[in-house]
Amino acid sequence: MKVGDLIKIKTSNAEYEGDLMPSLNKDIITLKLKNGYNIGIEKSRIKNIKILKKHKELKIRKEKVKFNKNLPTISIIHTGGTIASEVDYKTGGVVARFTSEELLSMFPELNEIANINSVFLSNMFSEDMRFKHYSLIANAVVKEIKKGVKGVIIGHGTDTMHYTSAALSFMLENLPIPVILVGAQRSSDRPSSDAAINLICAAEFIAKTDFTGVGICMHESINDDNCIILPACKTRKFHTSRRDAFKPVNSNIIARINYKTKSMEFLYKYEKNKGPVKLLDKMEEKVGIVKVHPNFMPEQFEFFRKNKYKGLIIEGTGLGQAPVGTLNPLSKINSKNLKAIKDLIKSGCVVVMTSQCIFGRVQMHVYSNAIDLVNSGVIPGEDMLSEVAFIKLSWLLGNFRNKANDLIRENLRGEINNRLMPYHFL
Amino acid sequence: MKVGDLIKIKTSNAEYEGDLMPSLNKDIITLKLKNGYNIGIEKSRIKNIKILKKHKELKIRKEKVKFNKNLPTISIIHTGGTIASEVDYKTGGVVARFTSEELLSMFPELNEIANINSVFLSNMFSEDMRFKHYSLIANAVVKEIKKGVKGVIIGHGTDTMHYTSAALSFMLENLPIPVILVGAQRSSDRPSSDAAINLICAAEFIAKTDFTGVGICMHESINDDNCIILPACKTRKFHTSRRDAFKPVNSNIIARINYKTKSMEFLYKYEKNKGPVKLLDKMEEKVGIVKVHPNFMPEQFEFFRKNKYKGLIIEGTGLGQAPVGTLNPLSKINSKNLKAIKDLIKSGCVVVMTSQCIFGRVQMHVYSNAIDLVNSGVIPGEDMLSEVAFIKLSWLLGNFRNKANDLIRENLRGEINNRLMPYHFL
Repeated sequence: MKVGDLIKIKTSNAEYEGDLMPSLNKDIITLKLKNGYNIGIEKSRIKNIKILKKHKELKIRKEKVKFNKNLPTISIIHTGGTIASEVDYKTGGVVARFTSEELLSMFPELNEIANINSVFLSNMFSEDMRFKHYSLIANAVVKEIKKGVKGVIIGHGTDTMHYTSAALSFMLENLPIPVILVGAQRSSDRPSSDAAINLICAAEFIAKTDFTGVGICMHESINDDNCIILPACKTRKFHTSRRDAFKPVNSNIIARINYKTKSMEFLYKYEKNKGPVKLLDKMEEKVGIVKVHPNFMPEQFEFFRKNKYKGLIIEGTGLGQAPVGTLNPLSKINSKNLKAIKDLIKSGCVVVMTSQCIFGRVQMHVYSNAIDLVNSGVIPGEDMLSEVAFIKLSWLLGNFRNKANDLIRENLRGEINNRLMPYHFL
Repeated sequence: MKVGDLIKIKTSNAEYEGDLMPSLNKDIITLKLKNGYNIGIEKSRIKNIKILKKHKELKIRKEKVKFNKNLPTISIIHTGGTIASEVDYKTGGVVARFTSEELLSMFPELNEIANINSVFLSNMFSEDMRFKHYSLIANAVVKEIKKGVKGVIIGHGTDTMHYTSAALSFMLENLPIPVILVGAQRSSDRPSSDAAINLICAAEFIAKTDFTGVGICMHESINDDNCIILPACKTRKFHTSRRDAFKPVNSNIIARINYKTKSMEFLYKYEKNKGPVKLLDKMEEKVGIVKVHPNFMPEQFEFFRKNKYKGLIIEGTGLGQAPVGTLNPLSKINSKNLKAIKDLIKSGCVVVMTSQCIFGRVQMHVYSNAIDLVNSGVIPGEDMLSEVAFIKLSWLLGNFRNKANDLIRENLRGEINNRLMPYHFL
């Protein structure tokens, strides 16, 4: 029995199936279960062990990949995440695979779709990304465009993929090629991994489309049949672990790709940019998001003024409300919330309202609290996602400081949708 | 043509239909459109005006409502919102209707379902609610229970209804009757209003069920056929304006009521409390919610320590992540986020992690950032909604300060669900 073998363990009251992992404690056997998690089982509890399958190490192609002039060229920029990684059975950790050779060894189907360039930028958790990383990625995309590639795939951790897709949309003006972010909810060595299908569908889409701009390619359902191309500024992660975690909000999907038949369906009439791409990669660092709630304390708004923030997204309730009304005697403290917001705006901070409802649109002319907020200078964020409004405001303040107040309400990259949109997850 | 009449106006390029409203400017005619919004039309632009229907004022029953001993008694507690209100055509504002006579005049069907008590608490916007209001409502419910009512309906603004339903669930331990929050997305004088159907279905449900505990009754779809009873601690408002804005998260609905046939379907096996109800209505005021995001600044965590907060919900990314990793050289500042969280916990603040994915469950033993957070004392919030975790933590710190760390992860009122749950909006 060797590390990496698929084994089945029976104890008196349970049965476990998974890959044998290295264990630091000699009294415990560690298994990596099919769901990707590790479990430790005390040897004394084990009644029976069976080897179901011996481990085969990934054989990385040694021969140089040949350029096929009949196929388009796609660059894959690796930033992190589980998209192209496998478990290192020596350490129990996950190792990322970056080179073209490694990628083609893991996903040989790619070879039939395109010539693959591989670019390593980083191998990081997506929640650790800072604005400087967005600039790094945008610059790397521009470099690939200059090489004349048909499109770019960005391997990315899923947690903040929708923040990055928005950032790249804004930074890459007049982008003349498709740039598709791809993630995986299960690491690519797992039988249940969605990595290969997401990656191959993204490559298929790039090879066959004339779409220009940024998109996200992920599973449409938990079945391994369809992937969808989601709009960069109208998408959100809605589930902690499912493969179909990404859904459009106030928008349709751009396209659906059937993994098996490779057929493609377009659900969105997109504009085509001719280029040349213009890189606008500055971001204002002093921007925040505040999710308001009942019993909200004014000191939380005051913080942003005291710390000289230049932008703030208020994720309000309903149509764009915040606790600023004092009609009820017990709500008197709410007047301090309104004052703190006014003072913040007077200090030069651009304050934008979105809704924690997520779906729908803020309407700030209906109820008196919202009217008071607008009269104080709060800007309605239309139907923008809070996450996208945050990225957009940071970007506007970084590149067009004086125009931020006006441009925040203007649709620049598909982040504002003025048509009535379906309200469901698919 | 009188204020309140339904009229149709034609201009050279448009047609408007709505109720005539009072207008402060004599050159402008103001209409309340069917969607509930007001529009001003310059008289000079008008080509043609037609009266479609004369306005009839609500005739409030004068006779005393007779007690029907064959029907159960339901108390309706009014806190605000558009559930029982109509446009005051003299002022253009919305007036709330509170007395039993007014309610039965507006919704005569209620008379056949139950004897109605009416209790006026407040008429406020729900975003202005503070913890003291939750205590006020909980105390009012206890008073009605003592009168022996079959159940209580709470008329409530929709924006923070899901925060209030959670607060009442926790405050009212061993609640022996159904307490159903009812709101409306369109005010009750509008033809498109959902108020009547939501209210009548809630009354039907209370009259015919042995359910005990807190629920929310709202439209299931935009059709006027079914209402659903949603679980108090597993529900969220997902749309700024649609009537079917409320959806369960990581849970099923409790019941479905057909408005036309009055048939009822139960989709949830609920426990029945026998009472007596125990009121636990203290709430710790110094509790906050922080939604983390890429480029998050440590000063935002430091704020909560400096201001002596006792509780904090971190609405993290994915499985319960926050930007605390420094593996990438550009992420160095993230170490300050981790330190700030550690210092906050050392200062005595209880810090709980939820996920901005909304659906699914935090799993903080998988990735190193989350493991660092747990080792620093951050408590995984299981599958709780951020809103509910915030209410629960404030309530725990108010009533069981020393046990808050343990009880936050224990299912007390259905706020934590350990079964695998469907992931869709219905």
